[in-house]
Amino acid sequence: MAREPGGELDLIRKIQLRSGRVSDSASRDSRRASAVTLGIGDDCAILQSPAGHELLVTTDFSLEGRHFDRAAHPARSVGHRCLARGLSDLAAMGATPLAAFLSLALPAGLQRTARGRAWVDGFLDGLLSLARNSGTSLAGGDTSAAPGQHILADIVLTGAAPRGRSLRRSGARAGDALYVTGSLGGSAAELAQLLRTPRRFRSALPENDHPHLFPRPRLLVGQALRRRGLASAAIDVSDGLSTDLHHLCAASGVGAMVEAAALPIHALAATEEDGGLALVLHGGEDYELLFAARPTVRMPRTVAGVPVRRIGRLTRSKRVLLERDGRTEPLDSGGWEHTL
Amino acid sequence: MAREPGGELDLIRKIQLRSGRVSDSASRDSRRASAVTLGIGDDCAILQSPAGHELLVTTDFSLEGRHFDRAAHPARSVGHRCLARGLSDLAAMGATPLAAFLSLALPAGLQRTARGRAWVDGFLDGLLSLARNSGTSLAGGDTSAAPGQHILADIVLTGAAPRGRSLRRSGARAGDALYVTGSLGGSAAELAQLLRTPRRFRSALPENDHPHLFPRPRLLVGQALRRRGLASAAIDVSDGLSTDLHHLCAASGVGAMVEAAALPIHALAATEEDGGLALVLHGGEDYELLFAARPTVRMPRTVAGVPVRRIGRLTRSKRVLLERDGRTEPLDSGGWEHTL
Repeated sequence: MAREPGGELDLIRKIQLRSGRVSDSASRDSRRASAVTLGIGDDCAILQSPAGHELLVTTDFSLEGRHFDRAAHPARSVGHRCLARGLSDLAAMGATPLAAFLSLALPAGLQRTARGRAWVDGFLDGLLSLARNSGTSLAGGDTSAAPGQHILADIVLTGAAPRGRSLRRSGARAGDALYVTGSLGGSAAELAQLLRTPRRFRSALPENDHPHLFPRPRLLVGQALRRRGLASAAIDVSDGLSTDLHHLCAASGVGAMVEAAALPIHALAATEEDGGLALVLHGGEDYELLFAARPTVRMPRTVAGVPVRRIGRLTRSKRVLLERDGRTEPLDSGGWEHTL
Repeated sequence: MAREPGGELDLIRKIQLRSGRVSDSASRDSRRASAVTLGIGDDCAILQSPAGHELLVTTDFSLEGRHFDRAAHPARSVGHRCLARGLSDLAAMGATPLAAFLSLALPAGLQRTARGRAWVDGFLDGLLSLARNSGTSLAGGDTSAAPGQHILADIVLTGAAPRGRSLRRSGARAGDALYVTGSLGGSAAELAQLLRTPRRFRSALPENDHPHLFPRPRLLVGQALRRRGLASAAIDVSDGLSTDLHHLCAASGVGAMVEAAALPIHALAATEEDGGLALVLHGGEDYELLFAARPTVRMPRTVAGVPVRRIGRLTRSKRVLLERDGRTEPLDSGGWEHTL
């Protein structure tokens, strides 16, 4: 019943055609090629988990008006971020991505306008470009007309890690050191700029230095931490350092002491009045990795080419504290809380 | 930032608490208990695909205003149907369900009203009751506030089947016989009744004979067809017999001849003016299995307790035809087209 030109079937064909190209490119990598036995076009996709591996699954909404703003975010960024959220969850567990499944609902009539079609093309470009770069096949999903005027996406990421070796939130102990990759606060700072002057970002390129628009999930870092046995627990900084640290502490049954002076501040955040501290602690969506390591581990300065900074330690008390200018204060959870 | 009472965090806790009970019940089944190593509460869920098995994945939107109507569908039915759609996809491939992942976005304020909370409870009751009955663990997902006034759900189902043995749409050959389970048209007929007199259905119980409100995915039938090598190709009747038969024929590179007189008509549809034929052919959402079998296969009358009816045959011509009162006419695809 949805076979008008520019309708649902056209959308499916467009996705099939383009995701086919992803599979072709992925098939040069024999391990990954074997992951998706059957892609789009049957009742289910069929995946093979590599021998001796466990399978990881994560799902993330990208809803217009909640997770992005069509007036502010370029379509390419929305597609990139849609996939990046799930890839970052895989990164936090040290996994390798296998396949993604995209559920996409578009408002009625969107694809009947040139502007709407360009939006969908940009969205798929952003998503499939990151899929290619991360070795992720788009193996299926669902499409629908949206019931209202908002674009609705939900993405499932599957990945693999050697059985029993995935990094978890729960492995840290009191006495472990606390680390973070890259720098924090950049995403929230760029978002604030974006909402002030959206036009500046319409053709945001290169994609290398846009911590909000084009975050780079730390897949290789997570895999190296797991492979080299460097981390005792890990989580990605999606909801904000303060919130995600509370999650890690709760799962591990420990507290934490964070040294404010040690926090790596993104250049875009450092120009804030407070030096960027609020954005670093609570901004969220940095998609860096926050992880713990036994005190005896000699942590390299960079892992997989990404700087790693020691920002504190885990404690026996269940309290999460911030040490700042010689004083200690509670570090309350101040970010988003939405991960199931 | 969403920690008001009745907010997102409360929803997550409610789901965690209830899905925990599902896991407890599933843990009595040792094979399934081993499937979900790590459920809700980390960056990803961890699944173990049973040895020698491949993993199947399917995703389905359930969007208010598109897939259900809050005024007409009881909440319990919405939850049941949300899971049933994915289970039926697994059934069509002969798979056993492992774990489900629910992404759920609720309109702002819904959970602050008693009626809204009752809706969410009913929805989860329906979903988790079918999860329990089908041995499916709820292992994760995502929650969000919805951007508009519509309830938005997306569900992922994972399942397992012995490697290389999943039933596919593509295995049929010209000369194969065509079969369908149960009866058709009941769902569309019940939906029409429901939209006329929604109040009659507010407390629809027992759930046994409501083809639209509480469809029963044919998991055991699909598994038996696979295990006993009875089917050469299969698909579930979600979009309507005519549409799904076109999908099966296209995937297998064959045509079909359907005998109108052989079609099993649900009692609710049989009272229509045309004897129910339009609803049987195009109604959709029956969640029966449509499958092919080699002409040499002796098909039992029932499989896993469900009647199986021969409704035609597959042909070398690529045309899909209906034989009716001695005349042959094209059977055009007349159902929904939305499966990626």
